[in-house]
Amino acid sequence: MSKVLRLAIAEKRAVFGGWCALPCAFGAELLAAGGLDYVCVDQQHGLIDYADVTPMFTAIERAGGIPVTRVPASTDWMIAKALDAGAQAVIVPMCETPEQAAAAVAACRYPPTGIRSYGPIRSALVRQARDTATLGDEPMCFVMIESRRGLDNLEAIAATPGLDGIYVGPADLALGLGLEPDLDKPEKEHADAVAAILDACRRHGRVAGIQCSGGASGRRYADQGFGFVTIAKDSALLQAGTRQELARARGDTANPAASGYT
Amino acid sequence: MSKVLRLAIAEKRAVFGGWCALPCAFGAELLAAGGLDYVCVDQQHGLIDYADVTPMFTAIERAGGIPVTRVPASTDWMIAKALDAGAQAVIVPMCETPEQAAAAVAACRYPPTGIRSYGPIRSALVRQARDTATLGDEPMCFVMIESRRGLDNLEAIAATPGLDGIYVGPADLALGLGLEPDLDKPEKEHADAVAAILDACRRHGRVAGIQCSGGASGRRYADQGFGFVTIAKDSALLQAGTRQELARARGDTANPAASGYT
Amino acid sequence: MSKVLRLAIAEKRAVFGGWCALPCAFGAELLAAGGLDYVCVDQQHGLIDYADVTPMFTAIERAGGIPVTRVPASTDWMIAKALDAGAQAVIVPMCETPEQAAAAVAACRYPPTGIRSYGPIRSALVRQARDTATLGDEPMCFVMIESRRGLDNLEAIAATPGLDGIYVGPADLALGLGLEPDLDKPEKEHADAVAAILDACRRHGRVAGIQCSGGASGRRYADQGFGFVTIAKDSALLQAGTRQELARARGDTANPAASGYT
Amino acid sequence: MSKVLRLAIAEKRAVFGGWCALPCAFGAELLAAGGLDYVCVDQQHGLIDYADVTPMFTAIERAGGIPVTRVPASTDWMIAKALDAGAQAVIVPMCETPEQAAAAVAACRYPPTGIRSYGPIRSALVRQARDTATLGDEPMCFVMIESRRGLDNLEAIAATPGLDGIYVGPADLALGLGLEPDLDKPEKEHADAVAAILDACRRHGRVAGIQCSGGASGRRYADQGFGFVTIAKDSALLQAGTRQELARARGDTANPAASGYT
Amino acid sequence: MSKVLRLAIAEKRAVFGGWCALPCAFGAELLAAGGLDYVCVDQQHGLIDYADVTPMFTAIERAGGIPVTRVPASTDWMIAKALDAGAQAVIVPMCETPEQAAAAVAACRYPPTGIRSYGPIRSALVRQARDTATLGDEPMCFVMIESRRGLDNLEAIAATPGLDGIYVGPADLALGLGLEPDLDKPEKEHADAVAAILDACRRHGRVAGIQCSGGASGRRYADQGFGFVTIAKDSALLQAGTRQELARARGDTANPAASGYT
Amino acid sequence: MSKVLRLAIAEKRAVFGGWCALPCAFGAELLAAGGLDYVCVDQQHGLIDYADVTPMFTAIERAGGIPVTRVPASTDWMIAKALDAGAQAVIVPMCETPEQAAAAVAACRYPPTGIRSYGPIRSALVRQARDTATLGDEPMCFVMIESRRGLDNLEAIAATPGLDGIYVGPADLALGLGLEPDLDKPEKEHADAVAAILDACRRHGRVAGIQCSGGASGRRYADQGFGFVTIAKDSALLQAGTRQELARARGDTANPAASGYT
Repeated sequence: MSKVLRLAIAEKRAVFGGWCALPCAFGAELLAAGGLDYVCVDQQHGLIDYADVTPMFTAIERAGGIPVTRVPASTDWMIAKALDAGAQAVIVPMCETPEQAAAAVAACRYPPTGIRSYGPIRSALVRQARDTATLGDEPMCFVMIESRRGLDNLEAIAATPGLDGIYVGPADLALGLGLEPDLDKPEKEHADAVAAILDACRRHGRVAGIQCSGGASGRRYADQGFGFVTIAKDSALLQAGTRQELARARGDTANPAASGYT
Repeated sequence: MSKVLRLAIAEKRAVFGGWCALPCAFGAELLAAGGLDYVCVDQQHGLIDYADVTPMFTAIERAGGIPVTRVPASTDWMIAKALDAGAQAVIVPMCETPEQAAAAVAACRYPPTGIRSYGPIRSALVRQARDTATLGDEPMCFVMIESRRGLDNLEAIAATPGLDGIYVGPADLALGLGLEPDLDKPEKEHADAVAAILDACRRHGRVAGIQCSGGASGRRYADQGFGFVTIAKDSALLQAGTRQELARARGDTANPAASGYT
Repeated sequence: MSKVLRLAIAEKRAVFGGWCALPCAFGAELLAAGGLDYVCVDQQHGLIDYADVTPMFTAIERAGGIPVTRVPASTDWMIAKALDAGAQAVIVPMCETPEQAAAAVAACRYPPTGIRSYGPIRSALVRQARDTATLGDEPMCFVMIESRRGLDNLEAIAATPGLDGIYVGPADLALGLGLEPDLDKPEKEHADAVAAILDACRRHGRVAGIQCSGGASGRRYADQGFGFVTIAKDSALLQAGTRQELARARGDTANPAASGYT
Repeated sequence: MSKVLRLAIAEKRAVFGGWCALPCAFGAELLAAGGLDYVCVDQQHGLIDYADVTPMFTAIERAGGIPVTRVPASTDWMIAKALDAGAQAVIVPMCETPEQAAAAVAACRYPPTGIRSYGPIRSALVRQARDTATLGDEPMCFVMIESRRGLDNLEAIAATPGLDGIYVGPADLALGLGLEPDLDKPEKEHADAVAAILDACRRHGRVAGIQCSGGASGRRYADQGFGFVTIAKDSALLQAGTRQELARARGDTANPAASGYT
Repeated sequence: MSKVLRLAIAEKRAVFGGWCALPCAFGAELLAAGGLDYVCVDQQHGLIDYADVTPMFTAIERAGGIPVTRVPASTDWMIAKALDAGAQAVIVPMCETPEQAAAAVAACRYPPTGIRSYGPIRSALVRQARDTATLGDEPMCFVMIESRRGLDNLEAIAATPGLDGIYVGPADLALGLGLEPDLDKPEKEHADAVAAILDACRRHGRVAGIQCSGGASGRRYADQGFGFVTIAKDSALLQAGTRQELARARGDTANPAASGYT
Repeated sequence: MSKVLRLAIAEKRAVFGGWCALPCAFGAELLAAGGLDYVCVDQQHGLIDYADVTPMFTAIERAGGIPVTRVPASTDWMIAKALDAGAQAVIVPMCETPEQAAAAVAACRYPPTGIRSYGPIRSALVRQARDTATLGDEPMCFVMIESRRGLDNLEAIAATPGLDGIYVGPADLALGLGLEPDLDKPEKEHADAVAAILDACRRHGRVAGIQCSGGASGRRYADQGFGFVTIAKDSALLQAGTRQELARARGDTANPAASGYT
């Protein structure tokens, strides 16, 4: 694989990615083969176990994509296993304090910077950057801010040394703000929180990432300055596509055009 | 599961189905949960092995769908294993003679009618028809006609005692006619062959089935008289959805609306 | 699936369940198909990994059973993944304090009640209660009391807001009391501890659950007031059945009738 | 593993075995650990795929049992793969002619005796007989007679050079005789067919094997002279055990004692 | 993947490959990452099932290798499934007649040339040759000659239109000649047979391939003119390496240097 | 299995073992069949998930080896699941304090000594020591010291009641000392740390274990007094073997003899 995530983000300003909830390597390969810059294997809310991660990463890389994963929690050994398997970025959910952000970063770095244990079993085979001298070649570390407490500590979290970015999960963020969980949220409070995270990232030189309901909203977020933008999710594509084709087959013309992300 | 395929076809005139090429039970469950009448687990051209079949059938049934499979060839033991696992219909590819059609039917029936060996391990749990007295409660047997030789024998194949239906694979049929393989074929020769199969089915009281490029063409085939109509395929939905969302994200508005089936 | 656990317990007074230690979806389906109300997939002491959980839940639901799981520890992300996969109840082992009970409950509830992260990937498909308005439709949360310290805090644990029930594991409870671990314990000290738990549940409106050596002891516990009673375990059925048939084959008539649970 | 099937049969006169329909290595290990002489992994009617075979054989051997398999059909490459994985006996279904019996035997032997291809990948590790000089150390080959045509050719089949035994599947045999398929058949015609097979085996020095409904009937068949007697099946033990414990729990005392094999 | 097998052979005169008997995608990736031109996934004598094939191909491609497979028999549907999964060459065992060779070739080609059914599910993603205009971009088809009858028909087999090459399995060839099966055979009769195959390939413009005991013998065969030379097998490397390290640890200096292929 | 780890170490002074990073039961079986005393299934840095552990343990035992595992972290439930699956020793990484060592030991022991929950699902089948009366029959517990802080607490860690041994991971230890991570380290500081650990083990009656680059260095460590010495790793054997055979095939004679461990 010749692409490296840091480089891609640096070159393209915004990378667009896919999201896998299905434990299916060929599904992941199809997403990557479709041209997405990265594909994230979700170990938190997908039905994916660690045994699925390596074949999915392999398939994503084979198709020219960059493998990324969301771990289910900020647990050191899970982060380490994801990195050993070849993840080029780890997304760590539910970060509420700068201490938690620092712990997530430390789990991604070898001593003396961090605490990652050495045994780069598969990652040693696949990390071959073209030129990352000025960018660093460590895997990227994103944390998610999804609660009021996290928002209260936004400034300190964004300032965490070594942190690469902050990833927004709009649904959990909504729940954290006392709103209904959804990806597209009309409430001003929600938009303000998203804007605050983007602004903090910009000021601290971090990459802002976000989960989107599809390519159209992804376009808008990229235009605002988000650099790591997820626009397609396997399970949502299957659900939306099934609904759409079935509506057509049944002649249900009133059915609105389904979005690629639900 | 309260639905049985024969009954559904009898009641609805046309059932609409999904198609799985991905070895992923949750993907199959999502298709069935979207309201498709049946979901076919493709053991011929998908990346699916027999070990995947039972969990996929289970997931399809759980979501209220009817599990169907295409076997890779008219091999007795593969048909038997699919039926033992709970398939309510088997699609047998590349049928060219009435003898082959009769052999496929025989593989689906216990003696004295057929040659299926007894050991209904899982199928004994799930076959619970409401009322199939007049319809028969055997699993359905479809054969595919995909070559000139098969077309030449169409009448005799359609007349095969016990055969439930003929399933059209437009791409292989095109290849068999010396045309480029595709699902939507403009050539009159192709359309004539499809029409001849439909007509033979009608005259012999068989169900005509067909693989479609999506719900729109499925609608047209159902209107013509096809009763078993596949309108959504997992791998195609992922590919089309990825392309569509990526085009939106990149602002590539010239990109035509992707179909759900490629 | 039309049944929901809360409802079943409310209607039946006592539900009877199965227990899976084998990572085998068809085995779980057989237990559920046999008429058990629920089947628990044991992630603590069985040989079951998370990758096995979804196909097992699917099979249990397909056969009309209610899927339940015991997690290996009171770890938030494991509870969340079990719920996302469709568990209708989670059994959390080794609870010793009301704080631990509250944490287990919180892991089962979305904010603002709890801390569960939003992403109901598969559970969104299968949770369809008939009428749970007055019962609540959240997944149920059981904690296990298996130590003296837990017994000392029984009253406070039972009073934990939102807790659904307390589940007794007689073997670990015996170990906690300094006795030999077994399911059927003759010692008064053990019986007193079980009775105390049942009494606390009754006074606090919680469901009392228990692991039994078979249907006969399950009957006795149900008569006492236990509402969630496990009476059959896959590995034990295989062991007991093998022993019994082999004794018959060898004419070893002295062999006592084997129980279904060892 | 120190036991070899030929030797065990020679020493014990009758060996008693288990039968696995579940794709679950630990289930197979439990059967073998219970003291059964052999455990047969059923690739024909179980839900078992080749990928399950090797871990199941390994588990059976670990627990001191002898791994055996039934292949889905008399297909050379499937027999060869089963032997490469370590099967000590292969049961080949639906044998109707001496030519078919000879083909099954040939698939089990290397040239010049047979046609098995060389590549004893795992079997080279595990075949370590104590003393098989006079017994031969080739894997055993059983064929099944399950039809009138097979019965008509019984004498010639039994005379097939190199054949080790004939295995009776009472249910398929019943179907072949125009009777309802079941393991315990009261009809004289069925008993006569079984007796004829046993007699032919005795006269030709073959081992007679049979699938039984449990240990009690296994005892009777062993007393008659059957040497390879299957008395316990995993799926049946789970079903019977579940029914029995549930009947006890519900106080349904009228429920008759469940057999270990259904 | 930028390499295509035909091209590699044309450019390099001889390509060197690995061989996988272990159902392990990461093992296959390690072989390919070590610089081998191709890696063959053995479905005949390895413990590998079809479900393992796709992840193994994906891993081999990811590491820059070319995925190849040996099917267990010349069965059309197995060849088709291997090609759909992305095999760039298929090795078909036990070819004895030109008719069998022609059938193997036909199974690798779409109509009108052959009989392969259309549904290039994964192969459509990965077949991206740089320049195969003059070489053809069909997957390659090798047959194995392993018996006297095959040798007797060598000339006619080598002349089969569309055949790409003949692959020698020295052990089975030895068995076919009445010799002990092994990879390195000193007997002249064996060497003569190998030389005759090489000569026939040369005269008919076919690629000669061979299974070697290691790199040293592979070098010799390549010098003779073999173009497709397998020099390392996963199971053999593990066995030889274990023996070697254990001998060193125990100070057993008399132990000869282990070869990489046993 | 007749061997038990404590006994083997007591009898042999030093046992030699293998190490598995590949999720492949047959690979593990090959290592054990090669004569290694134990084989460690690495859940920390290998690509191995818990679902792989049981089949790997089973295969190791079948071949006469002793199954051992390294858990990814000192997490009670992971240690318990490994022991339930049959591990005879657990290696717990990154121990820095005597409290951590005591916690690891407690996770390996039932109450009242420790906190392990009771449910010895598979371990009950396989733990059959010949004579462990004076040695204890509990599974062994090793902790790893890999940091300066751990070294500072070496004395107290070694004195932890119930601890069986200390295992050295030279690469992580090097990182902890500010050196480049590798197995063979020339620096005196590194050698001193290893010697200090060995000395502490000797004085406290603990077994010293170490990860070696191959049999030769294993021999040296055993001569110094290490009793539990890992000399062969699956992934390293595949990499080294591939490199070696390829160098021979390409005539690259300058290539130094590859070691069995990289």
